[in-house]
Amino acid sequence: MTKTIEFYFDFGSPTVYLASTQLPLIAERNGAILEYHPILLGGIFKATGNQSPAAVPAKGAYMGIDLPRFAKRYNVPFQHNPHFPVNTLPLMRGAIFYQMEGDFNKYLETIFNAMWVEPKDLNKPEEIAETLLGGGFDPNEFMERISDQKIKDSLIANTEKIVEKGAFGAPTIFVGEEMFFGQDRLDFVEEALK
Amino acid sequence: MTKTIEFYFDFGSPTVYLASTQLPLIAERNGAILEYHPILLGGIFKATGNQSPAAVPAKGAYMGIDLPRFAKRYNVPFQHNPHFPVNTLPLMRGAIFYQMEGDFNKYLETIFNAMWVEPKDLNKPEEIAETLLGGGFDPNEFMERISDQKIKDSLIANTEKIVEKGAFGAPTIFVGEEMFFGQDRLDFVEEALK
Repeated sequence: MTKTIEFYFDFGSPTVYLASTQLPLIAERNGAILEYHPILLGGIFKATGNQSPAAVPAKGAYMGIDLPRFAKRYNVPFQHNPHFPVNTLPLMRGAIFYQMEGDFNKYLETIFNAMWVEPKDLNKPEEIAETLLGGGFDPNEFMERISDQKIKDSLIANTEKIVEKGAFGAPTIFVGEEMFFGQDRLDFVEEALK
Repeated sequence: MTKTIEFYFDFGSPTVYLASTQLPLIAERNGAILEYHPILLGGIFKATGNQSPAAVPAKGAYMGIDLPRFAKRYNVPFQHNPHFPVNTLPLMRGAIFYQMEGDFNKYLETIFNAMWVEPKDLNKPEEIAETLLGGGFDPNEFMERISDQKIKDSLIANTEKIVEKGAFGAPTIFVGEEMFFGQDRLDFVEEALK
């Protein structure tokens, strides 16, 4: 029976980015399906009383050491985004839209790259527009579609659902009923697939 | 050149316990020295504005899944302590004392076992006394010596030193100038020894 990896993600988290570089490989080598579920990390924090690790300055400083260690292990490009934390609401609404009607994989690659490789200030609408253009997307269509109430509601519903299932941050990953939190639990995700 | 693993620990943390089961093995197979540094986790939290993961209920619930996963991987006994969080001040002062003048390894084993395997309510002086007796220690000597100002000062000094070096929780581990946080970074600790 084919297993599914449910990946609850928000572009604004560097650990989500790191997970996103590895999960397609894990899915492929285990013959599993990788399902992307856009959520709003800020909504999870609000609902659970959790906060970004960076809210504790010493923890934020340590992430500046810890994240590059994993990027090196994974052999993927990574730069801390100096504009962090970024309000990812439009970007996550965009994820809902392109997942339904567009080139979702290209969108993922474009936004993750702009956020954690280049990195750009995606708080700014003009930098989002530039990024979209660079990826072959139409910024006007993006702006129009992310105002759809259905898209807004869908992002809220995804976020509420995962909070109900026990999430308190991102990346949160499910394999069946088993929940895993963090890009540093991908070895357990892989074990759950076997 | 022989490398040293500096292990900053407080008995009150289940992740410190898990690390304590693996670090002697890591030291042995890499020909490294394992140095124990008693600290007060509550003091680190106070100094850095950090808090226990269990302060966020959903995160506390997830730890109830995550910790047994690692205990199973390590093949070590583990039970969540229902009296958590425990005020470990006397126990950590005791660690300073037995490290200077007693059977430190036996003390570590006795307290970790009482906290995370049996588990006992080590908030209660009578359960501490019973635990010490069971390990072959004299509870009266313990009570007397942990009131020594030098012992109190030494625990404070250890805690302040590690906060200055960037710690925000426990276990914190140093190999040379490289800092590692968490029992889930022991693979990186081992890489740093090679």
